[in-house]
Amino acid sequence: MNERGFGQAVKEFRERLKISQEELSFRAGLHRTYVSQLERGLKSPSLRTVQQIADAFHVDILKLLQRAERRSK
Amino acid sequence: MNERGFGQAVKEFRERLKISQEELSFRAGLHRTYVSQLERGLKSPSLRTVQQIADAFHVDILKLLQRAERRSK
Repeated sequence: MNERGFGQAVKEFRERLKISQEELSFRAGLHRTYVSQLERGLKSPSLRTVQQIADAFHVDILKLLQRAERRSK
Repeated sequence: MNERGFGQAVKEFRERLKISQEELSFRAGLHRTYVSQLERGLKSPSLRTVQQIADAFHVDILKLLQRAERRSK
């Protein structure tokens, strides 16, 4: 798994839910600039941050991580 | 998923392989004290670190994360 694949997965889940980066950052308790960096694959999030994002999507963390792994190939 | 569950999963995989924390830290390119803190649930690793640990175990990252999620319940 790599940063690029994780970022792509986040972007896909977010766009599927039709919410902005700002809304995601609000829901997850993260800075909007950090969410932007994550989606662009510029940061490697901690597991705690991954959990916060999964919660913001109301999705199982493993589902988000499986998508991230597929997108990392 | 939480730090405690991830730490427990790492410890279980490591003990199954019969390797020391020192050997794991060497293989993963991490400090031994950091590996110790991870196993005790004191740190939330980045996805990059999780990947390094999975590689050190020669196991799929999703397998390690699935175990971590089960141990977090």
